[in-house]
Amino acid sequence: MKPKIYVVGFGPGERPYMTQQAVDAMTQADLVVGYTTYVRLLEKQFPELQYYATPMRKEADRCRAAVEAALTGKTVALVSSGDSGIYGMAGVLLEIAAEMQADVEVIAVAGVTAASAAAAVLGAPLMHDFAVISLSDCMTPLEQIYRRVALAAEADFVICLYNPKSRSRTAYLAEAAKLIQQHRKPETPVGIVRNAGREGKRAWITTLEKLPEEPVDMFCVVLVGNSQTYVQNGKMITPRGYCVRREESC
Amino acid sequence: MKPKIYVVGFGPGERPYMTQQAVDAMTQADLVVGYTTYVRLLEKQFPELQYYATPMRKEADRCRAAVEAALTGKTVALVSSGDSGIYGMAGVLLEIAAEMQADVEVIAVAGVTAASAAAAVLGAPLMHDFAVISLSDCMTPLEQIYRRVALAAEADFVICLYNPKSRSRTAYLAEAAKLIQQHRKPETPVGIVRNAGREGKRAWITTLEKLPEEPVDMFCVVLVGNSQTYVQNGKMITPRGYCVRREESC
Repeated sequence: MKPKIYVVGFGPGERPYMTQQAVDAMTQADLVVGYTTYVRLLEKQFPELQYYATPMRKEADRCRAAVEAALTGKTVALVSSGDSGIYGMAGVLLEIAAEMQADVEVIAVAGVTAASAAAAVLGAPLMHDFAVISLSDCMTPLEQIYRRVALAAEADFVICLYNPKSRSRTAYLAEAAKLIQQHRKPETPVGIVRNAGREGKRAWITTLEKLPEEPVDMFCVVLVGNSQTYVQNGKMITPRGYCVRREESC
Repeated sequence: MKPKIYVVGFGPGERPYMTQQAVDAMTQADLVVGYTTYVRLLEKQFPELQYYATPMRKEADRCRAAVEAALTGKTVALVSSGDSGIYGMAGVLLEIAAEMQADVEVIAVAGVTAASAAAAVLGAPLMHDFAVISLSDCMTPLEQIYRRVALAAEADFVICLYNPKSRSRTAYLAEAAKLIQQHRKPETPVGIVRNAGREGKRAWITTLEKLPEEPVDMFCVVLVGNSQTYVQNGKMITPRGYCVRREESC
């Protein structure tokens, strides 16, 4: 039997938001490999497991370590927060395993992604078509990111922005807001969730116009409503269509 | 204390893919309300719970039943498959509760959405920006759906198509494929997953050109790769950027 590497999305972070499959994959693994911050988060909840932590931006090293451990016969869980399949480790692991010509079986374990976790906190902003865009230009040209933002705005998608800001990328979010405003009203509701599903959770609703002034950082997800999104009783709601109250007739 | 309605996304269907929070909300509720097919699926796994099932397209009735039960003092779990916050019941429930001026607390419980479940089966197709579009024109004008498909294709998003086909909507998927082909090569990989995370699961990879001939139905999710997506060892992979193998330097 081939050695197995589970590439596990453990969701926002706390146990209630993990799937049973993710918990099983981690607790049954001989080694849990992940980015230092996430390993610390998991250690608190599963102190009995064996961990191997690597710093940020060392994704390829982390995958190589996971493959090497698997080749010695260990069952490995390579962990990501959110969903391992959405900007997660699943892709890099498959690429590195192929590069190493390693005969290992990679099993992806889906999790609750940040957009879902944030939407649950805000109300129901993702009831209609949406686009997920990362504002990190570490591996994508900035012009392409802006082009996607502009086209998503034109298409009237609800827009989920991952990695909206970091210490080195402070101006992109304001530029994205400007591009979206070319197709959407300044008062379009925008939901911001910081540390969704984790200690220190904070969520608030603002407008597209005010977005550039909001205290957004790399721990936030930003959800920009579509042309129909509204706020009611403190909840951000995108109706499912243009005749939601007449649905019985359709 | 206000009566509580948990609007629960239980994921693809089977227990391993549910979050602990979803299981807790359902098993601690006095009444579980849902669409007949999903109630049957849950009854097999949680036979001890009290259920109330309503047929398809009776979403508003289902929400009213949930609100009425809550107003009699019952804790209610209103269930959706996937994520209750993505084309799920969260929005309709909030709208109906407001319409009924019911003083209830709505708590959204996120789940693993079909795009995540399908991606895990296919490999790693969602490693870069993506758009989620429903091809159901029950509540959205068809022109708007096609417009979104075309703009998403132009923006080079990976495209996840929900509700790709039904008995009454057989031609939309072929039209969508044609629109996407105006911006993407005929050999672009397309992953199709039927019954992801449920009994009778089936997944296969085809191309954009062949998509119109594939046996797709309403139980499928269709994932169309972006310009960089490729297939390797039977897995569909979208690289994270244009320099994934050089990530250490960025």
